Amino acid sequence: MTKRFAVVEGGGITTPQGFKAAGLHCGLKKTERYDLGVIVCQVPAAAAGVYTLNQFQAAPLAVTRESIGHGGKLQVMLVNSGNANACTGKQGEADAYEMRALAAKAFGVAEELAGVTSTGVIGEPLPMEKVRNGIAGLPEVLKADGSEDFCQAIMTTDLAQKLVCVQVTVGGETVHIAGAAKGSGMIHPNMATMLGFITTDAKISAEGLQKLLGSVTDTTFNMITVDGDTSTNDMVVAMASGLAGSGELTEAHPDYEAFAEGFRYVGEYLAKAIARDGEGATKLIEVNVAGAESLEAARAIAKTVIGSSLVKSACFGADANWGRIIAAVGRAGYPVNTETVDIRIGDLVTLEQSRPVKFDEEKALVYLRGDLVQIYVNLHMGRETATAWGCDLSYEYVRINAAYRT
Amino acid sequence: MTKRFAVVEGGGITTPQGFKAAGLHCGLKKTERYDLGVIVCQVPAAAAGVYTLNQFQAAPLAVTRESIGHGGKLQVMLVNSGNANACTGKQGEADAYEMRALAAKAFGVAEELAGVTSTGVIGEPLPMEKVRNGIAGLPEVLKADGSEDFCQAIMTTDLAQKLVCVQVTVGGETVHIAGAAKGSGMIHPNMATMLGFITTDAKISAEGLQKLLGSVTDTTFNMITVDGDTSTNDMVVAMASGLAGSGELTEAHPDYEAFAEGFRYVGEYLAKAIARDGEGATKLIEVNVAGAESLEAARAIAKTVIGSSLVKSACFGADANWGRIIAAVGRAGYPVNTETVDIRIGDLVTLEQSRPVKFDEEKALVYLRGDLVQIYVNLHMGRETATAWGCDLSYEYVRINAAYRT
Repeated sequence: MTKRFAVVEGGGITTPQGFKAAGLHCGLKKTERYDLGVIVCQVPAAAAGVYTLNQFQAAPLAVTRESIGHGGKLQVMLVNSGNANACTGKQGEADAYEMRALAAKAFGVAEELAGVTSTGVIGEPLPMEKVRNGIAGLPEVLKADGSEDFCQAIMTTDLAQKLVCVQVTVGGETVHIAGAAKGSGMIHPNMATMLGFITTDAKISAEGLQKLLGSVTDTTFNMITVDGDTSTNDMVVAMASGLAGSGELTEAHPDYEAFAEGFRYVGEYLAKAIARDGEGATKLIEVNVAGAESLEAARAIAKTVIGSSLVKSACFGADANWGRIIAAVGRAGYPVNTETVDIRIGDLVTLEQSRPVKFDEEKALVYLRGDLVQIYVNLHMGRETATAWGCDLSYEYVRINAAYRT
Repeated sequence: MTKRFAVVEGGGITTPQGFKAAGLHCGLKKTERYDLGVIVCQVPAAAAGVYTLNQFQAAPLAVTRESIGHGGKLQVMLVNSGNANACTGKQGEADAYEMRALAAKAFGVAEELAGVTSTGVIGEPLPMEKVRNGIAGLPEVLKADGSEDFCQAIMTTDLAQKLVCVQVTVGGETVHIAGAAKGSGMIHPNMATMLGFITTDAKISAEGLQKLLGSVTDTTFNMITVDGDTSTNDMVVAMASGLAGSGELTEAHPDYEAFAEGFRYVGEYLAKAIARDGEGATKLIEVNVAGAESLEAARAIAKTVIGSSLVKSACFGADANWGRIIAAVGRAGYPVNTETVDIRIGDLVTLEQSRPVKFDEEKALVYLRGDLVQIYVNLHMGRETATAWGCDLSYEYVRINAAYRT
């Protein structure tokens, strides 16, 4: 199938018309790296958000949800790293509201047009004096090409910047969809410690954007795992400026599918970038499940395989251990026909109709030493499919997480 | 509460009257360590079994289930390590039946009185010539003090032998309950790669033994995790010879509770020994959940915390990172009152009514560097409790599992 969108090389979240971004260091991170960032739209943008399902939700999530709920618009999206403002009680709530008020004031918009989000250590109060000074300094560093500054400001243990932009033609006009994300640990289905920001200059209603973001999240951000942990702070926010000059996108629009395809690509690109940058990861692992009886089964099985510490360790060690893959398939909680499972690792067939197939161990080793491992499981029970992404489990993961807080 | 049983120092699975055991090397393991073992009872023993919930069950499980199902008795229990006889198709089934037949013949009992089980690599056919020779040699190494030989024969990546014996008075007679187990990786609730063998000289019906074994498994073997993976081969088998001379134990017997307490101790001892010997483990972690609304919630939350790679890594690094504990509590899938959670790590209160409490970091470090970390979570929502056990996640876990098959 021909792609109906094109990747914009060097593009970022400020490529869609109407968006600027900024990043600066206000003192929340111990290093001199940026720890406060903002995306500002020239006009109130149609907005949508998806939030962690963890029951302990950090204070800023409620504040952003309130802003988007107020009128379906955001114009300023503020983010800090280094401190999650989670499990911080009434003070944390007050701090999140104050951040929203200060950000709105700094850029001259109504409070309900501002959203806030935080990522970092849980349970420590925000050093608000630093945050206040930082917010006050943001307007003077706001840039039309501030994507990379913003990316630096949202990173915690991330090693790589996660930034992407595509363009698609809608009603003869060029429309951009761009995204930035952070996240490399505590990543699991249901919006683990990750933040995503999607900007577009398409014209679309808040409701339409919410629906699209929700469905794209189900197959991208919610299909990655680094370590099975889900954080208190995860959120993906989308903002549509409508400044591209195209007509309003509804599902009935002839170019809607092309737009949705581009939007989905942005989500998948960011999700895979997060998985690939998983703490300590040396490779991206992709698990494709086919032939499932239901979508739920396909997704659960894909996520169980990608989440298996034993599968992850085997990939790190370049061991074509299909026994661990089938053991994970069998404990995912959905019925499986134990006589009809095929497993491929890359091109190598290792199991056919649940029977081991002799394969070239040398070829397997070469393949598994690469930086992408694709695992294919066919259940031969139905027509549903799902794909999940994750990474290998390395010494480095343990090192990073044994010493995070200290 | 006073314990109604006593630990028998130096006791093992051959301490209960009527049991002998053996171990030998038949060539399934690459080293010279024992890889074939047997427990033999002087009389047909009342028998009970619990089996993995993984949908891919290894061939020997069906064979043992069939034997126990036939008449509720076992007299010979055969086990090999080094090869799991899982995902081995029709040949694997035939091999498991042949092993049963050979073991029965070697010890002169009916086939339906013999059980078989296997542990090791998945998907490789059993080298039956070695197994046949091995079984033929077992009678001559059968010993009245064969517990340790048997323990060596069931070990795979285990570093420590897991063996325990208690005694309890039933109707004035001394009754013994003993257990042996193996398992150190792929360990997770629902009978992960672990094998457990419990022997007793109490007189109890197969039905009574099955009920007790099931309830003890729920709070012991099913409450441990090393890495969240569940194997195709897990099984716990209990055999009661009835030779202690005590009356038949039913729930109505005045000493039943004392017997059940001893039996439960054996299960918990073995479960904790498996968790402590988790691949690469440097310490045992115990998670106690109190104040839950339901038993299911208490167990799910305890297992989610103990299974969190981030909590495990933090324990390895001696980091009192309660934020990771509460994040795990919040994603366990059960409603939690986010305002009323207390968390203690050992004696150190770190969270009270969901608010962080300043604690002595130096004391925390000293405590977390020990070989037992006890985590207490009180939800203050109800009266149900649960305890789960696991271990920390270390470099060594990754090393072991990156290179297992090769």
